[in-house]
Amino acid sequence: MQVRNLNMPGVLGAVAAAIGNAGANIGNIQAVYLSQHHVVRDIDVYVRDHAHIQRVLRDIGAVYDVEVTEVRDEVLALHVGGKIRMVSPHSVDSIATLRKVYTPGVADVSKRIHAEPRAARTYTAISNMVAIVTDGTAVLGLGNVGGLAAMPVMEGKAALLSQLGDVSGIPILLDTTVPDEIVASVKHIAPTFGGIHLEGIAAPRCFEITERLQAELDTPVMHDDQHGTAAVVLGAALSAVRMCQMDLGKVKIGQIGFGAAGQTIADPLMHVTGNPVMGADIREAGRQRHASHGGLPAEMSEIMAKADIVIATTGVKGLIKPEMVRRGQVVLALSNPEPEIEPAAAMAAGAMLATDGRSVNNLFGYPGIWRGSLAAHARKINRDMLIALGQAIAAMGPASELLPNPLDRAVHQRLAHAVGKAAVASGVGEDSKDLEELEPTP
Amino acid sequence: MQVRNLNMPGVLGAVAAAIGNAGANIGNIQAVYLSQHHVVRDIDVYVRDHAHIQRVLRDIGAVYDVEVTEVRDEVLALHVGGKIRMVSPHSVDSIATLRKVYTPGVADVSKRIHAEPRAARTYTAISNMVAIVTDGTAVLGLGNVGGLAAMPVMEGKAALLSQLGDVSGIPILLDTTVPDEIVASVKHIAPTFGGIHLEGIAAPRCFEITERLQAELDTPVMHDDQHGTAAVVLGAALSAVRMCQMDLGKVKIGQIGFGAAGQTIADPLMHVTGNPVMGADIREAGRQRHASHGGLPAEMSEIMAKADIVIATTGVKGLIKPEMVRRGQVVLALSNPEPEIEPAAAMAAGAMLATDGRSVNNLFGYPGIWRGSLAAHARKINRDMLIALGQAIAAMGPASELLPNPLDRAVHQRLAHAVGKAAVASGVGEDSKDLEELEPTP
Repeated sequence: MQVRNLNMPGVLGAVAAAIGNAGANIGNIQAVYLSQHHVVRDIDVYVRDHAHIQRVLRDIGAVYDVEVTEVRDEVLALHVGGKIRMVSPHSVDSIATLRKVYTPGVADVSKRIHAEPRAARTYTAISNMVAIVTDGTAVLGLGNVGGLAAMPVMEGKAALLSQLGDVSGIPILLDTTVPDEIVASVKHIAPTFGGIHLEGIAAPRCFEITERLQAELDTPVMHDDQHGTAAVVLGAALSAVRMCQMDLGKVKIGQIGFGAAGQTIADPLMHVTGNPVMGADIREAGRQRHASHGGLPAEMSEIMAKADIVIATTGVKGLIKPEMVRRGQVVLALSNPEPEIEPAAAMAAGAMLATDGRSVNNLFGYPGIWRGSLAAHARKINRDMLIALGQAIAAMGPASELLPNPLDRAVHQRLAHAVGKAAVASGVGEDSKDLEELEPTP
Repeated sequence: MQVRNLNMPGVLGAVAAAIGNAGANIGNIQAVYLSQHHVVRDIDVYVRDHAHIQRVLRDIGAVYDVEVTEVRDEVLALHVGGKIRMVSPHSVDSIATLRKVYTPGVADVSKRIHAEPRAARTYTAISNMVAIVTDGTAVLGLGNVGGLAAMPVMEGKAALLSQLGDVSGIPILLDTTVPDEIVASVKHIAPTFGGIHLEGIAAPRCFEITERLQAELDTPVMHDDQHGTAAVVLGAALSAVRMCQMDLGKVKIGQIGFGAAGQTIADPLMHVTGNPVMGADIREAGRQRHASHGGLPAEMSEIMAKADIVIATTGVKGLIKPEMVRRGQVVLALSNPEPEIEPAAAMAAGAMLATDGRSVNNLFGYPGIWRGSLAAHARKINRDMLIALGQAIAAMGPASELLPNPLDRAVHQRLAHAVGKAAVASGVGEDSKDLEELEPTP
């Protein structure tokens, strides 16, 4: 909002206090105009909804000689026109260039690829393009809102994939939720892409769709809500083990909730620790799936009583009560947008470390996974690659923090390098100049 | 190639003469290094193939004290890494911005679109994204080379669509040539896009695929090899009528060849002139199709003898012999990469105006068609819009030229405006701020 008030000491403090007392958080504050008597400032205010902003406005209005001159929704403003653009690195400013990037020159490149399909890696953008595909059935914490409403999320993913991973993410919104149709459509458009990033497809359909595409395509396929989440949660868990000086071979891990993410999280955890993960789910199907993957079915109460690290992905706000938290426990309450227990409440109840899904975010995963997979020309994204990402996250976090800075490109470059190296080591990728270029400088 | 020679008058002339005598054209020449005695220059040389470059190199080598120090394939060099990138106009450089363009802020935008799907036009990139879809069966003059080999062409189209039309073109390569599968796949991914640009699909399958998608989708659909070509050829024909001061109501037009483009070209021509177009095709199916659309079946010899304007789209190099050309005729020999008759040969044989597919290029069509259709939120691309583009091309060409400069953004903006206005006038689009912004400044 834009706020105009007398230019004298103390007024901004009163405004900020009014905003805080109304229960809203403040972001950046920037002076836009200073006159002899007045000052006009842009103040970022985070509110919950329309009623909340009305309350904030009323409370600011009660401060002496303060006027709110404009209210803008910055989030909406940033979305006008969308968040992505397809552009060319070449400016075609002459007929000479036109004849090279378009007809007739382009025909030579097409002929070369026709004769030697592998040349497409070098002379097209395919090996740097990833389809971000959704049917809109499980978007963020919003549920089944459909493909169209998922687009802002898809564009956000693409924007960050470009900025942090130098990869072109192409949103693909499907008009169907039928697994056969999804699999067929994705297969028919797959030649365009170096990878298929599935996003926000509800369980249990996501398991079948992801597995079929992984089996039937030579292109790497992952479902971010499963594999991306699994790799990042592994990173957070390993980071917690390091910070709390636990013994990786003896640490007891318990998981609550086996939706799209749950089972996929358990798999690399069990592989890295060498021990079964205790698992609780209110649905019999979830418990059985966990057991059939080598997990240890348990009750939630048992997990809260015994586990050193508790990982909750249930989608149920407030499921973990403070009195359930065991002293010294690590609590990763990951449901978005509202966690199973607020980190502050878990810490107050005696947890050694507690965090939520706002911090343990997939943003740590997919840019590095894709950049690394594409650099190594990986045919698959396998468990080794997810584990490599998790280990690299844990190896990188500052001593006092569970996770590194998610907006640091160097962080993602290191993660990508770890993923690419793991692809090579596990036989699904190959060394390349692109992979060498990701090598961290000592 | 990079050429090093003694820095004295006359040497460059000798080099240029050697290149010319070897039958190769010269593009840009740029000095890269000058010493007291020597000069090093980059010389762009256009060659046909590997044998041709060997001959050029041998002939340059024969010039006294000239050394070719490097040979680079500029076309291939420009294609390394591909010609397109998906990027974001927003740099996410702070957690505050991250929270606006990604979680949690993005959820507000998703909820708004879920409640009011029309808001997706404003708050996503969808209404600025066009899928450029091919099955690779009829790529340029290369024929059925498959989707992968078509990618350099698709990327070229996307790069130019971005530069000249400010539209994001998303290549989609299909792994199938079965019409049912193509239609199903395109429909399933259609919610992602504001338009579907079909490209390089062979006749006669392209007719069925295009018509079915046009009928079944609310999104505008065109097949560039049909509709884009038709609009541009109409523009060239109308421009020829203007230049040669013919009477539009009386001009006799003859067409030879009814593949993907032929029939679609005839339709707006007949509509604008109010007269049937004479049409010849070696295939009975082509002749019948033309007749069933109100055309006048004819023999090629009859067309060459009677028509004022001859339009050839046969794919047969040299089909029109100089002796067939009637004095004062306009000859548009449009097959790529080799025309039915070279324009110079047609002019020498008495044509008043002659050109080929290198000049009458689809590049004049699709950027304006898409920018205009999207600005008007058009539900269809109809005949009125194609005619509007053709008329706008003819109205814009300099007095002595058939066509304007294809790399001039202002040209494409005018064309887009004409297309958008026609969409509104014909009831398939609506006035909008985007359309107003295309209004040419007087």
